[in-house]
Amino acid sequence: MEPWQLTASAAAPMLRDGTLTAEALVRSCLERIAEREPVTKAWTFLDPQLALTSAREADKAYTRGVLHGLPMGVKDMIDTADMPTTHNSPIYQGLRQGRDAACVGVVRGEGAVILGKTDTVEFAAGGRRALTRNPHDPTRTPGGSSSGSAAAVADGMVPLAFGTQTGGSLVRPASFCGVYGMKPTHGVVNSEGAKRYSHTLDTIGWYGRCPGDLRLVAQAFRLFGLEVPLGKTLGRLRVALCRGPNWHLAGPESQEAVLLAGRRLAAAGVAVEEVELPAGFDEVTEAQRVILMAEGRGAFLAEYLNAHALLHQDFRDRVENVSGITARQLLAAHDLAADCRRRFDALFPGYDAVLSPASTGEAPVGREDTGNPVFNSMWTLLHVPCIGIPCTKGPNGLPVGVQIIGPRLGDAALLDVAALVAPVIDA
Amino acid sequence: MEPWQLTASAAAPMLRDGTLTAEALVRSCLERIAEREPVTKAWTFLDPQLALTSAREADKAYTRGVLHGLPMGVKDMIDTADMPTTHNSPIYQGLRQGRDAACVGVVRGEGAVILGKTDTVEFAAGGRRALTRNPHDPTRTPGGSSSGSAAAVADGMVPLAFGTQTGGSLVRPASFCGVYGMKPTHGVVNSEGAKRYSHTLDTIGWYGRCPGDLRLVAQAFRLFGLEVPLGKTLGRLRVALCRGPNWHLAGPESQEAVLLAGRRLAAAGVAVEEVELPAGFDEVTEAQRVILMAEGRGAFLAEYLNAHALLHQDFRDRVENVSGITARQLLAAHDLAADCRRRFDALFPGYDAVLSPASTGEAPVGREDTGNPVFNSMWTLLHVPCIGIPCTKGPNGLPVGVQIIGPRLGDAALLDVAALVAPVIDA
Repeated sequence: MEPWQLTASAAAPMLRDGTLTAEALVRSCLERIAEREPVTKAWTFLDPQLALTSAREADKAYTRGVLHGLPMGVKDMIDTADMPTTHNSPIYQGLRQGRDAACVGVVRGEGAVILGKTDTVEFAAGGRRALTRNPHDPTRTPGGSSSGSAAAVADGMVPLAFGTQTGGSLVRPASFCGVYGMKPTHGVVNSEGAKRYSHTLDTIGWYGRCPGDLRLVAQAFRLFGLEVPLGKTLGRLRVALCRGPNWHLAGPESQEAVLLAGRRLAAAGVAVEEVELPAGFDEVTEAQRVILMAEGRGAFLAEYLNAHALLHQDFRDRVENVSGITARQLLAAHDLAADCRRRFDALFPGYDAVLSPASTGEAPVGREDTGNPVFNSMWTLLHVPCIGIPCTKGPNGLPVGVQIIGPRLGDAALLDVAALVAPVIDA
Repeated sequence: MEPWQLTASAAAPMLRDGTLTAEALVRSCLERIAEREPVTKAWTFLDPQLALTSAREADKAYTRGVLHGLPMGVKDMIDTADMPTTHNSPIYQGLRQGRDAACVGVVRGEGAVILGKTDTVEFAAGGRRALTRNPHDPTRTPGGSSSGSAAAVADGMVPLAFGTQTGGSLVRPASFCGVYGMKPTHGVVNSEGAKRYSHTLDTIGWYGRCPGDLRLVAQAFRLFGLEVPLGKTLGRLRVALCRGPNWHLAGPESQEAVLLAGRRLAAAGVAVEEVELPAGFDEVTEAQRVILMAEGRGAFLAEYLNAHALLHQDFRDRVENVSGITARQLLAAHDLAADCRRRFDALFPGYDAVLSPASTGEAPVGREDTGNPVFNSMWTLLHVPCIGIPCTKGPNGLPVGVQIIGPRLGDAALLDVAALVAPVIDA
């Protein structure tokens, strides 16, 4: 087995006890990248010498953090002090920031080696697509906007990578690429130094190849409750299978993934019950769109004024509020979201997790359509933690995942649930 | 009259029609700074040549934005591409970022000339205080954390400046320094590129010397509703005088300021009624503290890990959660805030504004105590727009202001109300 094939959680103890060096692991990842990158095109910046230097520094470190020596990719709309941050925008080609984004600082502080920057949809929002292809089928998208991060982890190039989610930019690519992804509770991971799209929605998250990988990064961020184990076995779990208000938009393979995951869990002794969401949830998807459009007005205003010709029409439209969102609509959306957050949380602790679709189906063909975020945007607005879990394959042999969802700030328990259910769902 | 004595709104038409050049205005501000800075110490970075170069560029500009040629100060925890951003932290001395914060980009895009960086409490949050002194009495604080911005505008050094408010960092210094300040609705001004303290609370705002100055900056940010005038006269206004749950913490001069403002308005024909806030508001101040402490855990984690020795104990305590905030407390605080936002908004349109204390009284003596934010932190958590208006003098001859408050996204109407009531309150 080559080092690049190790999951982060398998490599972590070896890096800690010295049976594997960060340099050897990075070198192996670089070899894998050299082999696969011409097809997958996951990276916008990768300097092998810089990565190896960082790895050697990690090997010499006096303290060993929870991510000691683990290579990590960073979505290219998150600032890095030693690498450019282009946002996939012609405005910011070659931009160098003076300091790391907060999330990058935290993982470096815990010993991670930043390998490089991964391609993204422009500003993680719209406009230009990433060049990245789906590692399972290069004619298809890996999903967006965290295209390069999801594909790089899926393709064995790097064990961990940062993504972000404002609509469905983290969990949907996880489903399309067959990897694990975590969108934590909104607000618990400092998004300073990542491009702002929507204040209410933007959430930093991460990809890995198993639930243990996701937990390592959660530990770096000291999420609430990680020190208290769930203390349950599979047979004591209660999972709410939730089709949700957009079930009719799920393709057959995505519906089947959720139902299959439910059957597998039930067969393993988990109490699985279908649950309908209470009143109001039918409107959350639209509320998410209203907030996205309204907050997009201010998000790209500086670029609109200073670099108008280089700003994609998508963003000019947002600044000009062509969708005509009113203040009243925006307030109604905020207030509905506040209500539904509380109502959703009330499902817990009656259940340990909600099981729901992660995408409409397999990854679409081509680069332009990065997939529909309809199974993610509601949860993003509800601020609840979501973990994407691979489940099955679609009619074209591409991965189709599901997601499990917890209450706000229930990230730690949800990670424990993921560790129990993933081996059953991802059979 | 020297150009530095002009308000922004008085200078704006002269700059637009060419009777005043940006260069002449900046030169005059620089002369005023040369005279006053040894006492006031408002600036952490000021390069006269850079400021004059920017002014000459503004004079040559083809388009004339709403802030054309107006000098502006920037609180030194907001990024600027051409000046260092130190956050008043030893960690970031000399830090150069590659691009402007979004708010700086917007005002530059509208023609403003960034004059320099103003001193701040460390990370606009705690730890080290600004060196700045109150222009009305150099033995006293200008308030914090927007110390340098409030003092610079009060001292005639610059007509406009950015501040931020997480607790009471914008409106309180306005009261202490006798200037106008606006904290807009949370989320409408993109805070990308400002240091994060609390995701839920951090709000970019600005100082000026009259309501018209505040409006100019609001126009640059295209706040909702500015195109629709309020269309009322003083005699048609209804103002709710609200002592609020912390009235007993207001010193006599602050209580008197609010009551005096109420009497002055009533004498001018405004319908002024005392209003008690509905149930729940007694706990909002504590909810703000809970959210501040909980979000402070993640806000300084990167510095805690990477520059521990240079991070003030204040911030280490936050990261270590020494105040022991639990996830349950944090959720309860969020949910209470969501309820109270709706309840507060329901006061409108029955009233046009709420009138309330802006500070506990005059500015304290010394640099260490920058004042109590108790009359601001509730409104910050409620996300509502607040405008600080000078009103009277305290027993030591220092300014004491009041504030008027509107419903969420009612910024434009509140600016119209301010234009009507300020000449009466600030008599």
